[in-house]
Amino acid sequence: MNSETTYVIGVDFGTDSCRALVVDTRDGRAVASSVCYYPRWKAGRYCDPRSDRYRQHPLDYVESFETVVRDALRKAGPEVAAAVRGLSFDTTASTPVLVDRDGTPLALTPGFEECPDAMFVLWKDHTAKCEADEINALAARWKTDYTAFSGGTYSAEWAWAKVLHILRTNPAVAAAAWSWVEHCDWMSGLVTGNTRPETILRSRCAAGHKAMWRAEWGGLPDGGFLAELDPRLAAMRERLYAETFTADACAGTIAPAFAERLGIPADTKVGVGSIDAHVGAVGASIAPNVLTRIIGTSTCDILVCDPAEVKETPVRGICGQVDGSVVPGLIGFEAGQSAFGDLYAWFRNLLMWTTEAFDPEHADAFADRVIPRLSDEAAAIPAGESAVLALDWMNGRRTPDADQRLTGAICGLTLGTSAPMIFRALVEATAYGSKAIVDRFADEGVAIRSIIAIGGISQKSPFVMQTLADVLGMPIEVVDTDQACALGAAMFAAVAAGLHPDVAAAQRAMGAGRGRRYQPDADRHALYTTLYARYRKLGDAVERL
Amino acid sequence: MNSETTYVIGVDFGTDSCRALVVDTRDGRAVASSVCYYPRWKAGRYCDPRSDRYRQHPLDYVESFETVVRDALRKAGPEVAAAVRGLSFDTTASTPVLVDRDGTPLALTPGFEECPDAMFVLWKDHTAKCEADEINALAARWKTDYTAFSGGTYSAEWAWAKVLHILRTNPAVAAAAWSWVEHCDWMSGLVTGNTRPETILRSRCAAGHKAMWRAEWGGLPDGGFLAELDPRLAAMRERLYAETFTADACAGTIAPAFAERLGIPADTKVGVGSIDAHVGAVGASIAPNVLTRIIGTSTCDILVCDPAEVKETPVRGICGQVDGSVVPGLIGFEAGQSAFGDLYAWFRNLLMWTTEAFDPEHADAFADRVIPRLSDEAAAIPAGESAVLALDWMNGRRTPDADQRLTGAICGLTLGTSAPMIFRALVEATAYGSKAIVDRFADEGVAIRSIIAIGGISQKSPFVMQTLADVLGMPIEVVDTDQACALGAAMFAAVAAGLHPDVAAAQRAMGAGRGRRYQPDADRHALYTTLYARYRKLGDAVERL
Repeated sequence: MNSETTYVIGVDFGTDSCRALVVDTRDGRAVASSVCYYPRWKAGRYCDPRSDRYRQHPLDYVESFETVVRDALRKAGPEVAAAVRGLSFDTTASTPVLVDRDGTPLALTPGFEECPDAMFVLWKDHTAKCEADEINALAARWKTDYTAFSGGTYSAEWAWAKVLHILRTNPAVAAAAWSWVEHCDWMSGLVTGNTRPETILRSRCAAGHKAMWRAEWGGLPDGGFLAELDPRLAAMRERLYAETFTADACAGTIAPAFAERLGIPADTKVGVGSIDAHVGAVGASIAPNVLTRIIGTSTCDILVCDPAEVKETPVRGICGQVDGSVVPGLIGFEAGQSAFGDLYAWFRNLLMWTTEAFDPEHADAFADRVIPRLSDEAAAIPAGESAVLALDWMNGRRTPDADQRLTGAICGLTLGTSAPMIFRALVEATAYGSKAIVDRFADEGVAIRSIIAIGGISQKSPFVMQTLADVLGMPIEVVDTDQACALGAAMFAAVAAGLHPDVAAAQRAMGAGRGRRYQPDADRHALYTTLYARYRKLGDAVERL
Repeated sequence: MNSETTYVIGVDFGTDSCRALVVDTRDGRAVASSVCYYPRWKAGRYCDPRSDRYRQHPLDYVESFETVVRDALRKAGPEVAAAVRGLSFDTTASTPVLVDRDGTPLALTPGFEECPDAMFVLWKDHTAKCEADEINALAARWKTDYTAFSGGTYSAEWAWAKVLHILRTNPAVAAAAWSWVEHCDWMSGLVTGNTRPETILRSRCAAGHKAMWRAEWGGLPDGGFLAELDPRLAAMRERLYAETFTADACAGTIAPAFAERLGIPADTKVGVGSIDAHVGAVGASIAPNVLTRIIGTSTCDILVCDPAEVKETPVRGICGQVDGSVVPGLIGFEAGQSAFGDLYAWFRNLLMWTTEAFDPEHADAFADRVIPRLSDEAAAIPAGESAVLALDWMNGRRTPDADQRLTGAICGLTLGTSAPMIFRALVEATAYGSKAIVDRFADEGVAIRSIIAIGGISQKSPFVMQTLADVLGMPIEVVDTDQACALGAAMFAAVAAGLHPDVAAAQRAMGAGRGRRYQPDADRHALYTTLYARYRKLGDAVERL
């Protein structure tokens, strides 16, 4: 371990903004940070919510990246800037873009500057539903089930479906497209000066979780499979990759032009990029058999375990399991709930209807007070006293057993059912949805020892977190950071730059402290275990409707 | 038919108030009316909503009766008062009271003036749930299933359960109790000076629908059955009745003291009393195979048909079927939904939560505007566009197949589900609940030719009424009166006094006009028929939870 004072920069590309965190590699102390909202995205450009089309312009990424790094270094001061040794990225995924032979996103080439199909297709874009169905149908009858390690279902949010959709619907883009690249890979390729599709270093995490890459079957799905979908996809396979890299790997040295523009040393190392939630789990000090949950509008649940613990067969109905996708040497799993905080926000908006209709000038003043007040009143209702039972599938079900067509339900309603009773049922439903994931891992032989939580809900909703602990019957520790992703990227940068020998060492040195700990109540856990059986029964009934 | 100008008085005892309607027997014209709210009831006395105990003091009835008749006659003038020939009552049911040997309600005897168990037990009192369960269990194993013509389930709202509950829980009242009487019977007995349990004329309607009376099995359930429940019930059977009377029968001439106090002729005839909804159906000009629906917070659905049309076996799952309970000579059926307008009020109250919490001074101003605005916005959503589906059992299910433990549900929820979408689903759910009743009659061979509607919702909610017509695929005619019950009582008074030969003649002469007619839309009916299958499937699933 290096004893001089060195810094690394973690750059986190979220859905709406990019942030940079400048971190001391010895103790993880954040010396400066900066956030920039994507200007074109913020203006609503290139998107059409009615058709679930969400695109982001590559210039939004490049400009905001340079802005936040420069701004953070300005705050940190020239001594810190001179001591920067590493830089790593995390981004949303799957957020692919079609590129030319040079690996340049088509939107940066003449004639495609304003074409949404030539831009990055954001993770939540759902324009490729039909193509996803087609991929699933083909996988079901193919000799190798390429979806087996993606929970048995290929999602419309993932790269192959999106690329196929654009190739089919936009002939001009299709004619210009040579290959495609994920956002996280393009960032590290861009700043190291290596974006060519054949040579750019690809993230193991994005490849394994979003593109059905798996070492055991020779990398990406075979050419025959892709050709059956579209010959152009098979042709692209030759310009994609067989090898992938974990996020501790070094993608190269920063390109001189970037070093100069950002004001950091010319020998700064750049790590291979990875997916935000996975990197966030590392930032939250994930360890084997500790489920790390990013709990916000939805949840992203990341688990790692020793390969020896995992059966040969894939874990049924979990989004993905990929060797090294989170921490090199460990199997990384990704699961999640399609809606968590979004359920509470939906109910808040429902309860705002009267104010919006008759008293709109007070809407803003009341809106922020609704959920805290509901939480207080719901917390005062004894567990199990109200018979209201909800199903948390208002945004479909991501895991276990993905099915985006499922919908939510509220039952056990009487004329005496109040808003806090329903709110409590919604909170319990999100906790039951969590239990369904935890139980599935356990049923499949992957033990979960404890839970750590990051994300907005974990910081601001003690009632939700306590209910979650009670339902799961497990303690939950909240990590004391709201920058887990950027911190995780900084940890990877430190390893990629050789300042820490491996991820575990970087976590030990640079990890954030633990905040509040929620201890399950034994009586409530017993009660919730009974009620959970009714939740499962309700879910079975709704699936059959 | 009498050609002189004569008047009758219909007296309607509702849940909260008593009203008198003075009617011209030639054309049904209402010359005066008056309403009086029960003073003790209004003050909340003798009730305990937490235990569903609802009692009414006999003085509330006597005082408000005298008040409204005198007030209406004062408005009508002395010439009208002098030409009054008949008086009839309708009341809620089952609303029984324990009485002494003279037929005096125990609350009017020394020592019991303030004792709730010595008062009338209002229809919606649910203190006798356990006793109802016991009656049902016994009926299920008895040689005669006495519940067969009450839909197969004896309700906690009916007389035997309530009487048994009081006998068991209040020894002082039990010791003083000689018999029991229904509110409608006591009123006509009281004003004719004949309240003795052995001689008072009993309503066929109340006996048949609420006390398992049936001519074919010799009247009330046999002594052995009652003794098995409680020997005191069997002893009371001897002081009750074998014979019952339809509401067109004359209970006698008004007692001199009452004639004098009310200011009406000494030879005024008093009809046998009956149940409000049944009398209201007559007032709404019910005819064979025309379903008359009183649509308010809940519905009461009354149907009559020719005895020759009805199979020997009872209609499954319908609250009751009694020969002559509505119109003499026809079989009368009673069905109903436990909640109708109450569902909309429940949702309104839910949507008022934010205003109540943060802006209570505006609550009153907004409350009345919520349902009209929701109706407008819901009406603008094309049928079937939103996938939201609700189940209308928020207050249990009365018919078909009574089960008060059932609860409501809302499913098909997404993060885009709005308040008007849910409101529309609730309206559709109440219509589906109506269809379940209509279909059950049809399945059991009782044809429903058309529908007439009275009650608050029928007058003020065109969107609800149109949806109901669309779901049922039947035209609905709204009757142009908000006094159907009192008008029906006046019709019965006219027949009892010999001013019209029978109910049909009285209806022809005195019936109210028809108001708005709702014609079903064929396309929407076809769509709703499909959606109704999902409603049934949801109901089956919720019943199995």
